[in-house]
Amino acid sequence: MPLWGGIEAGGTKFVCAVGTGPHDLRAEVRFPTTTPTETLGRAIRFFQQHQKEESLAAVGIASFGPVDPHPDSPTFGYITTTPKPGWAHTDVAGTIRRALSVPVGFDTDVNGAALGEHRWGAAQGLDTFIYLTIGTGIGGGGMVNGKLLHGLIHPEMGHIRIPHDRNLDPYAGCCPYHGDCLEGLAAGPALEERWGQRAETLPADHPAWQLEAEYLALGLVNFICTLSPQRIIMGGGVMQQPHLLPLVRRRVQELLNGYLQVPMILERIDDYIVPPELGNRAGVLGAIALGQQAMER
Amino acid sequence: MPLWGGIEAGGTKFVCAVGTGPHDLRAEVRFPTTTPTETLGRAIRFFQQHQKEESLAAVGIASFGPVDPHPDSPTFGYITTTPKPGWAHTDVAGTIRRALSVPVGFDTDVNGAALGEHRWGAAQGLDTFIYLTIGTGIGGGGMVNGKLLHGLIHPEMGHIRIPHDRNLDPYAGCCPYHGDCLEGLAAGPALEERWGQRAETLPADHPAWQLEAEYLALGLVNFICTLSPQRIIMGGGVMQQPHLLPLVRRRVQELLNGYLQVPMILERIDDYIVPPELGNRAGVLGAIALGQQAMER
Repeated sequence: MPLWGGIEAGGTKFVCAVGTGPHDLRAEVRFPTTTPTETLGRAIRFFQQHQKEESLAAVGIASFGPVDPHPDSPTFGYITTTPKPGWAHTDVAGTIRRALSVPVGFDTDVNGAALGEHRWGAAQGLDTFIYLTIGTGIGGGGMVNGKLLHGLIHPEMGHIRIPHDRNLDPYAGCCPYHGDCLEGLAAGPALEERWGQRAETLPADHPAWQLEAEYLALGLVNFICTLSPQRIIMGGGVMQQPHLLPLVRRRVQELLNGYLQVPMILERIDDYIVPPELGNRAGVLGAIALGQQAMER
Repeated sequence: MPLWGGIEAGGTKFVCAVGTGPHDLRAEVRFPTTTPTETLGRAIRFFQQHQKEESLAAVGIASFGPVDPHPDSPTFGYITTTPKPGWAHTDVAGTIRRALSVPVGFDTDVNGAALGEHRWGAAQGLDTFIYLTIGTGIGGGGMVNGKLLHGLIHPEMGHIRIPHDRNLDPYAGCCPYHGDCLEGLAAGPALEERWGQRAETLPADHPAWQLEAEYLALGLVNFICTLSPQRIIMGGGVMQQPHLLPLVRRRVQELLNGYLQVPMILERIDDYIVPPELGNRAGVLGAIALGQQAMER
């Protein structure tokens, strides 16, 4: 069986792994995201080391962004206009492909995770679903009609606008572009800034979580009404709080208010809004799945 | 060349036509939507009359909803849970198919219009776009990855939640399910109720239009961030006001605030947010396109 490489290219850290799937991850390395030269260099050396023992069929990259995920574009595989210092207009996929001489699959971090969940996790057998991560930022990807969602560029689901009652929550939001978009109100840094302590230190009965569930549910309602997903997978650091997902599910039902008469929402919401089955390995496994998909083209 | 029938099945009126495309609509009839038996009966008699002269290859139906658009479902082709009296759980497609003995294509009114625009109008050559109608209600359909968007059921884009500043606009919204969702704030009846006169009688410099553009632009921003469409087509009665579309375009740019660095949005917004090329025939032509698609399956 051929062996694949995967790179989960995050804004804070890179995770590289070699393997074939969730039950066969043979080696893994993590290191902080510094400069492109240093960071991509470390990734390349990790895979070159493995190539001495066994050949890699392809490498997949699930990257922070914005990125160019269109294979026909001259800047395919680039991180494009990111505000992260030094990384704007970086040819990530090309650098890896030239150094390792293998086909390279490339997409957003969340589309990668979505593909991993489709292949091995909570989205098996579905053709239209979304994967959201609620962490340092909020991002969303997914499949529609059996293919990863790209369109004009790729979704930026964290930046939708939602109702924000400033009498209930005077916090202005922390998105440098939009203030109180979904990410500006509900990502980890917004929680920390609003309540003056890190999200994971807030107790389960703190009002922070009702408010967080409200914003996330408003976001989900909008994604449901726009895309009509067959399932929604919610990962990321903020979702590690086990009391949050049940609050979100209930609030989604309340906000939809019976408008969508489908059993999946009315009766089986626990099976409709779910955590990732691949847990915190969704990212790097998604990258491996992107490598496999690159071979299948 | 074979001949197709199309039914634009609206909540207020039905339009039936026979033809092959926008330059060849041979006959058309319009009548009010009354009971299912009477209304579908009139449609059937119209097509039976034509079948005496020339055979129909298929009939397409673009219907008000909610509907079941999944060909594998036992209730495919039904209008399902509509509040419209007498029409809930009506087998529209089956009734037409049995009466006329032809294949029947069936989808939402907005997916039908989207397919028509893809075949003959403003969405030719695109694989991911949306078609919105702003009229008595607000609905959205479209294609993603080259196929009409369905997912769990079908999109209900009018029911997304958007920011609503009650200090600026104390109107509570008129959606019976959600109050101030997009449709509740920005469909024709909301304009009429808020300002005490019909939308088409409000002068171009009335503050109603700035507010309308604000709500529609907030909706568009959410659709753009969620689906990343290559183009957005805006039809429906409210969009007949020629001063409205430019206001919406400018406000979308302002709200996105340079976050999406793509020429289509930054420089070519007039080519990004556009009216339907098929005008008010998008509905019935879309229905004919659904009939053609039913034959191609």
